[in-house]
Amino acid sequence: MQGLLEQLQRLPGIGKRSAERIAFHLLKVPPSEAAELAEAIARFRRRVLACSVCGNVTEKDPCPICQDPHRDATTVLVVEQPLDIPPIESTGQYRGRYHVLMGRIAPLDGVGPEELNVQALLDRIDQAPPESRIREVIIATGPTMEGDGTAMYLAEALADRGVKVTCLARGLPAGVAIETVSKAVLADALHGRRGMTAEG
Amino acid sequence: MQGLLEQLQRLPGIGKRSAERIAFHLLKVPPSEAAELAEAIARFRRRVLACSVCGNVTEKDPCPICQDPHRDATTVLVVEQPLDIPPIESTGQYRGRYHVLMGRIAPLDGVGPEELNVQALLDRIDQAPPESRIREVIIATGPTMEGDGTAMYLAEALADRGVKVTCLARGLPAGVAIETVSKAVLADALHGRRGMTAEG
Repeated sequence: MQGLLEQLQRLPGIGKRSAERIAFHLLKVPPSEAAELAEAIARFRRRVLACSVCGNVTEKDPCPICQDPHRDATTVLVVEQPLDIPPIESTGQYRGRYHVLMGRIAPLDGVGPEELNVQALLDRIDQAPPESRIREVIIATGPTMEGDGTAMYLAEALADRGVKVTCLARGLPAGVAIETVSKAVLADALHGRRGMTAEG
Repeated sequence: MQGLLEQLQRLPGIGKRSAERIAFHLLKVPPSEAAELAEAIARFRRRVLACSVCGNVTEKDPCPICQDPHRDATTVLVVEQPLDIPPIESTGQYRGRYHVLMGRIAPLDGVGPEELNVQALLDRIDQAPPESRIREVIIATGPTMEGDGTAMYLAEALADRGVKVTCLARGLPAGVAIETVSKAVLADALHGRRGMTAEG
């Protein structure tokens, strides 16, 4: 049991207590259920790999989005993690490709650019064949301190590489009541205000 | 009792059932508590009035913000309701003045521009003395269908009046996780993306 507890505690967000709770749970369920979990973990790791182009998780390499000839290869949207892609896809508004950093720069946690999938992004831009030259990199890291820091780092690393670098707009989320919105959101919304008329 | 029920049902959001519930509540409390409520309502209406300049609720006319010589009179931020002002003030980022519409255009509810404090805004712009000419109107209606419709109406009404018309930025609210953000918010954030480098 000590071996299982040690293994479980290596997982993110699982401490000693959670590990014990999981271990006791596994003792109570039928053996077949524990075997299924073990098999799912092993299969996942055997089958799923990182796309060698964009870094997203995929069952075949390159991933379906990188292989799709109908996606615009000249635009690359950079996200922190694979989970950020489905909501962006669901908008139906983005037809370019992706690049997954697999995290964000977090000096306090010892995560620097070297720990992330950054060099591959730079190589992807520098080594793209002329017919699919990358023209725009949209940085879509999270609107948090670390996400913003990561975006700033990338913008600097991408400057002078002949690509347009943009980031997602910050402001009021559609549908909220202004009276309920936080200071930080309102400050962003004021700061980024947009012209509505020719004089604007 | 029928009289009270009728009065209560004239209030927004109070139907027959709520009115009855309030009436029964008032029967149960000590008479002094009912008297206090009555007095608070009467005092509120006697004391509180609409600022003749901006339409905000105030105890003296013009309101403190309209009278404050340290506020920039050349910038006016338009909100739907008085409750929207405190959160904007709390950002510490806005030093101009306000204009309160007292609602938003809502055709389905029979609310048109005439029902709102719109003409006073136009007059305020057209009749400002040269030394405090209004240069920018920031439209801060809510990021909803009706709020957006109201903003569009105002932008059109304000065009050709020699003022810059802007609206609050729409996009990702500071601090959220991208994986949890709605389609509408992400579409706004993509659509309004901003350049981060000279090439952007």
